[in-house]
Amino acid sequence: MSFDRLIEKIIKTQNPTVVGLDPKLDYVPQYIKEKKFAKYGRTFEGAARAIYTFNKKIIDEIYDIVPAIKPQAAYYEMYGWEGVRTLAKTIAYAKSKGMFVITDGKRNDIGATMEAYAAAHLGVTDLDGEVAEAFGADALTVNGYLGTDGISPLLEQCRTYDKGIFVLVKTSNKSSGELQDKLIGDKTVYATVGEMCEKWGLEAMGKYGYSSVGAVVGATYPEQLAEMRKALPSTFFLIPGYGAQGGGAEGVSKGFDQNGLGAIVNSSRAVMCAYKKEECDEKDFAKAARREVIRMKEDIISYLPKIALE
Amino acid sequence: MSFDRLIEKIIKTQNPTVVGLDPKLDYVPQYIKEKKFAKYGRTFEGAARAIYTFNKKIIDEIYDIVPAIKPQAAYYEMYGWEGVRTLAKTIAYAKSKGMFVITDGKRNDIGATMEAYAAAHLGVTDLDGEVAEAFGADALTVNGYLGTDGISPLLEQCRTYDKGIFVLVKTSNKSSGELQDKLIGDKTVYATVGEMCEKWGLEAMGKYGYSSVGAVVGATYPEQLAEMRKALPSTFFLIPGYGAQGGGAEGVSKGFDQNGLGAIVNSSRAVMCAYKKEECDEKDFAKAARREVIRMKEDIISYLPKIALE
Repeated sequence: MSFDRLIEKIIKTQNPTVVGLDPKLDYVPQYIKEKKFAKYGRTFEGAARAIYTFNKKIIDEIYDIVPAIKPQAAYYEMYGWEGVRTLAKTIAYAKSKGMFVITDGKRNDIGATMEAYAAAHLGVTDLDGEVAEAFGADALTVNGYLGTDGISPLLEQCRTYDKGIFVLVKTSNKSSGELQDKLIGDKTVYATVGEMCEKWGLEAMGKYGYSSVGAVVGATYPEQLAEMRKALPSTFFLIPGYGAQGGGAEGVSKGFDQNGLGAIVNSSRAVMCAYKKEECDEKDFAKAARREVIRMKEDIISYLPKIALE
Repeated sequence: MSFDRLIEKIIKTQNPTVVGLDPKLDYVPQYIKEKKFAKYGRTFEGAARAIYTFNKKIIDEIYDIVPAIKPQAAYYEMYGWEGVRTLAKTIAYAKSKGMFVITDGKRNDIGATMEAYAAAHLGVTDLDGEVAEAFGADALTVNGYLGTDGISPLLEQCRTYDKGIFVLVKTSNKSSGELQDKLIGDKTVYATVGEMCEKWGLEAMGKYGYSSVGAVVGATYPEQLAEMRKALPSTFFLIPGYGAQGGGAEGVSKGFDQNGLGAIVNSSRAVMCAYKKEECDEKDFAKAARREVIRMKEDIISYLPKIALE
């Protein structure tokens, strides 16, 4: 099952983090943009190609020390279909380097439509008899508001193609509590959705105790992370909100189990824009990203037990 | 404000329905597929071009009698970036024919990422000083699980570019109640989200009493439709689930106000596949779609007062 492959990569790299590739054009060094704009004009084509170059160079510098990347679909869609082509190319390139790819799309729908999303992002598409892979990520973030009808079409693809999903449970943003913290009986909405994840996962258990149904729980809520870790023993966590959004390493450690496993922590802007913070030569952006990845990893594992299977 | 334009189109056509363009390759007549596969191979390129031809011919036959189309993003993403290019082309073509376009993407995220989705689907993208339109729909479906942080970035685009959103409130599927019907105090989850829509909408009211923040409420739950219509007087409804999913015209009438306004009912498969049901020549598919659109309209308006502003 999918998160088995991720877990194995985490153990090998001793690094439970994922680099979010959410490449606003602002983040791309000037020299790359100038080159692409000169060739393709100040167009989506030019922007999308600049972003692909940026992503590729970051992947080249980090693939040996980070288990996974997490491209955020919104930042590709905003550059039109050309941007979406860059998403596909980025996923393919990261996979060619052996990385695990989590497409952050927060997709959600029902029945046949959710099957279409599953085919698009995790599985294969039928072309009247032949099949082809559209985006082919290893995992996809999804929203569980629609209940089982929105999740079960994904589980089949997870089983068939060895993939996983992360369901939004307790998100990292300030207003996440408006709905997620409300009480249903004596249980919060997020805990209710968390329970559903645990249940959905029963159909797709992996060999290391985690199912193919993970959960998104924000770094900015360490108490809820600890609560969910305890309540959802088979649910692997994707933890956004470390760094830029204010989540600290001690806090995120609450999302891990006694083997230093069970979670992966995302950082996007701090890695992509490390060269800006360092104020180094912009041509050194990928090496700066590597330095930030190492800093982040050291920070986080300093609060964890040694990462190893029992 | 956005739904003003939609309301005006509904009054003009006397038709409160929207045609969902969710084009699985299965729905596309053989003669179109054969032609495109012959030219481009059995590839995403071939499939995406076949789907565009299919969509275009349906739009040509219905644009004078239907106010809006609703392309479902999943069915384009499953054909890769080539499919997503067909989504962009379909939206542009429908707009060129004067139709209102609702992209059914159920997007959701927070802060800067939601701004990226807003730019992608409703607004414009900054290309280092110049701006360009990526997908440019008139409205987008969204998921409100993340609270205000996931909605407010859209409201700015709604105001600036005269666009709208539809937030998932009570979805049409069987399992929608697993979370949405649970009680928070004495109020269901869906009613709680509905109340948020009404509140978010205060910032973006249109001239006909409806705001830019609409809600998705399924045709399959007429009681809840009636309840929400009463509770959310400024919230325009998008009603899926008519026909194929089992919602009837009498039921969907509960979502409308005393002027026959306040809602738009979607039908996808029944229109796209009308030629299969009729068992007519497949080359007659677009005319069969038009016949189904007229049948659906007559069915629905037979339960409504005359559609007119007070």
